[in-house]
Amino acid sequence: MARIGIIGSAGRMGQALADAIAAAGETLSGGIDKGGDPLALAQASDVLVDFSSPHALEANLDAAVAAGVPIVVGTTGLEERHHFLCDDAALRTAVLQTGNTSLGVTLLAHLVREAAQRLGADWDIEIVETHHRMKVDAPSGTALLLGHAAAEGRGIDLAANSARGRDGITGARTAGEIGFASLRGGTVAGDHTVHFLADNERLSLSHLAENRAIFARGAVRAAQWLIGKDAGRYTMPQVLDL
Amino acid sequence: MARIGIIGSAGRMGQALADAIAAAGETLSGGIDKGGDPLALAQASDVLVDFSSPHALEANLDAAVAAGVPIVVGTTGLEERHHFLCDDAALRTAVLQTGNTSLGVTLLAHLVREAAQRLGADWDIEIVETHHRMKVDAPSGTALLLGHAAAEGRGIDLAANSARGRDGITGARTAGEIGFASLRGGTVAGDHTVHFLADNERLSLSHLAENRAIFARGAVRAAQWLIGKDAGRYTMPQVLDL
Amino acid sequence: MARIGIIGSAGRMGQALADAIAAAGETLSGGIDKGGDPLALAQASDVLVDFSSPHALEANLDAAVAAGVPIVVGTTGLEERHHFLCDDAALRTAVLQTGNTSLGVTLLAHLVREAAQRLGADWDIEIVETHHRMKVDAPSGTALLLGHAAAEGRGIDLAANSARGRDGITGARTAGEIGFASLRGGTVAGDHTVHFLADNERLSLSHLAENRAIFARGAVRAAQWLIGKDAGRYTMPQVLDL
Amino acid sequence: MARIGIIGSAGRMGQALADAIAAAGETLSGGIDKGGDPLALAQASDVLVDFSSPHALEANLDAAVAAGVPIVVGTTGLEERHHFLCDDAALRTAVLQTGNTSLGVTLLAHLVREAAQRLGADWDIEIVETHHRMKVDAPSGTALLLGHAAAEGRGIDLAANSARGRDGITGARTAGEIGFASLRGGTVAGDHTVHFLADNERLSLSHLAENRAIFARGAVRAAQWLIGKDAGRYTMPQVLDL
Repeated sequence: MARIGIIGSAGRMGQALADAIAAAGETLSGGIDKGGDPLALAQASDVLVDFSSPHALEANLDAAVAAGVPIVVGTTGLEERHHFLCDDAALRTAVLQTGNTSLGVTLLAHLVREAAQRLGADWDIEIVETHHRMKVDAPSGTALLLGHAAAEGRGIDLAANSARGRDGITGARTAGEIGFASLRGGTVAGDHTVHFLADNERLSLSHLAENRAIFARGAVRAAQWLIGKDAGRYTMPQVLDL
Repeated sequence: MARIGIIGSAGRMGQALADAIAAAGETLSGGIDKGGDPLALAQASDVLVDFSSPHALEANLDAAVAAGVPIVVGTTGLEERHHFLCDDAALRTAVLQTGNTSLGVTLLAHLVREAAQRLGADWDIEIVETHHRMKVDAPSGTALLLGHAAAEGRGIDLAANSARGRDGITGARTAGEIGFASLRGGTVAGDHTVHFLADNERLSLSHLAENRAIFARGAVRAAQWLIGKDAGRYTMPQVLDL
Repeated sequence: MARIGIIGSAGRMGQALADAIAAAGETLSGGIDKGGDPLALAQASDVLVDFSSPHALEANLDAAVAAGVPIVVGTTGLEERHHFLCDDAALRTAVLQTGNTSLGVTLLAHLVREAAQRLGADWDIEIVETHHRMKVDAPSGTALLLGHAAAEGRGIDLAANSARGRDGITGARTAGEIGFASLRGGTVAGDHTVHFLADNERLSLSHLAENRAIFARGAVRAAQWLIGKDAGRYTMPQVLDL
Repeated sequence: MARIGIIGSAGRMGQALADAIAAAGETLSGGIDKGGDPLALAQASDVLVDFSSPHALEANLDAAVAAGVPIVVGTTGLEERHHFLCDDAALRTAVLQTGNTSLGVTLLAHLVREAAQRLGADWDIEIVETHHRMKVDAPSGTALLLGHAAAEGRGIDLAANSARGRDGITGARTAGEIGFASLRGGTVAGDHTVHFLADNERLSLSHLAENRAIFARGAVRAAQWLIGKDAGRYTMPQVLDL
């Protein structure tokens, strides 16, 4: 029975993780939030699951490395330097960072990559997501994950080809760009749609999460899978053997 | 048989207008584009229909006033000063300015106003629209028209309560704001959805235009209705007796 | 503090009702299921809430009448004779029967009635709903409720104008009919869309329930409202003062 | 320049085919309808495109065989015996029969097959389609094509696992079945969605045709590709090299 430690235990996702750990028959080794001691938690755990905030990431990765335990990073709103921190920690322990831990989204990203690859550049790609009114970042980590999948399929760099926050006199759409739009409201757990828009036809690939349980379940599954792995950076498709 | 003049005749909307004028049994008195003479067109017409550009609006309104003919303004991308120009012209001739000339959208705006009025402030309002890759402004005129309907229902000022182009660390959603998001791609003639998002439930009101014919048909119907009206500013709901 | 009795207390809806009663600050007087005694429950309650099955309806109404307490009937799958039973009981106690207890759906029905009334007969009406894989009846009670609202708006009889379960060589669509389609799967709490489909444009009005909490909350609100009312048949729009 | 003959030339699809043939730089060798002579048309053509009716299929295939020209069959509403007729004709000429000739739908079927294969049996599959009010058969040929793709992915037989036209007391959903629902109205050229519904999450893959031009364009592309092929039965994915 694995001991799983939660970083970011106070929020709704923290509660969902505690439920999922119990449902999976594992042990909750403890949970911390802002001001907690990640090293003590890491030393008492076989694996960490971090759904806290980008600010806390460096300390959390350091704790995992120091304690020699793997870590699942599900925090959203990461910037480039946070990814460098993950890369760095992955030299010394197993790190699985993902914008979304659900099985459905992981498969969706796979289908988006394939569609983007097979459809010509005359199919414009637009990604729209909806989340609850408390979410503080836009686009969602999952929308960016889907954008990366689309960009990979197209063989282009996402950062250089993103259209975010369209507003005002934008001019005609730039060929090849990938658009992002974010809606916020209510208690929406997470809707994502990737549209491929061509002359006279449209292909749309969507995922809807009814609640947070699916993310917690997937994160626990990833944590179980990560125990005992060599140092390195891992991904959800590996967990699901896609 | 009314003589209808088209300003903005070269584009796809211009062609759709010419078709709709013929289908309605009226006469096309002529069509002009950038560089054309609106006054000569106005003098040869019983009513003008303008789907050109904001830059041309002042000259077109002046021509309508000078010739004493009413004018339907369907141009999108208007700013506050363009609305003042319409108000001014409306002192001397009949002006019907609208972000959308379709029957379905006009009814949608009516339903949005009613829903916004009856649902409490705990129902967040978000508006998302999709248009073809050639559209140069965002949000669409229709999205703004729907936003105004929602704001009226809520009894708030739209300009002071709009969230446009969300991107980056936005913080939690501001209570009472109306969100806008714009997708661009393919040949989409115009999709609009107004979402009302509450705790655990969502109400969504949508319109989809399969092609431009509906806008042209509605614009011609508005033009027919406008002939003989007193100076003043008119709206689509009046045309449709909503 | 009102005493509310639940008929159909064992299922997921029963649990949601118990939670909603507690959240509303009321008292759960008891809960029964198949084989339970509705009269004893009614005598211990100020109001009953029935989400059990059509088979149990007659005994439940009899108990409410005998004990002189009002009853909210949220059971789905009712046939014409069940409505007669409700009418009959309503001669002697207050009965509120509804296919859906949510605020959002109640408003949706109101908007559907209005749209059906204002749009001409050239706008075809189609209703599609999705529910979880355990649901045993189709279309859902809510879909029928929306169909009735549309039929009222059109001034037609729903039973004589329904197209249900289209399959095979159906021939072209009959003018004026209202179509119904039902999807089943997963844990979907309830999606409903009413489409109005015309030449080249479509208007769609939708509701999505993220979970059963909204139905339980609305049922408890209806129960609170019903206490002290005269004998008669009541509806959700009255509860919500629509 | 290939000579392409149209069977079913009078309807809207026939006109769209004529336009697509011209746009592709090919020659329209002629068009026939009910009562026309398919053999004479076949003898004057390099390839036939049939969008007429199931009743006419046998005579059309006979004409293609007799004249030694390949044939694209896009007729919908085919039954098992029509497929046997295609198989039989394919022993002597090249036959490409498909429920949908669009590139987007062909890719959608590919993605549906893959999703059905990778997602476990706890993901329920439901297919919903919408078409214009004149369509006489349900489900659409495209919905059945998508159903076959899903069944292939699952390794099951579609006919033995279809749930069509749900209505009344259906009981809980049968595990493993594939559901179909059909909406009819307006001028909808063709919407199709395949839903995968699991516990707390949903994956939905959709295609929307704005008009018939995409089917005509794809049919002409298939016809061009089919010229010179050996006798045999071919499919759209081969045309598109998927």
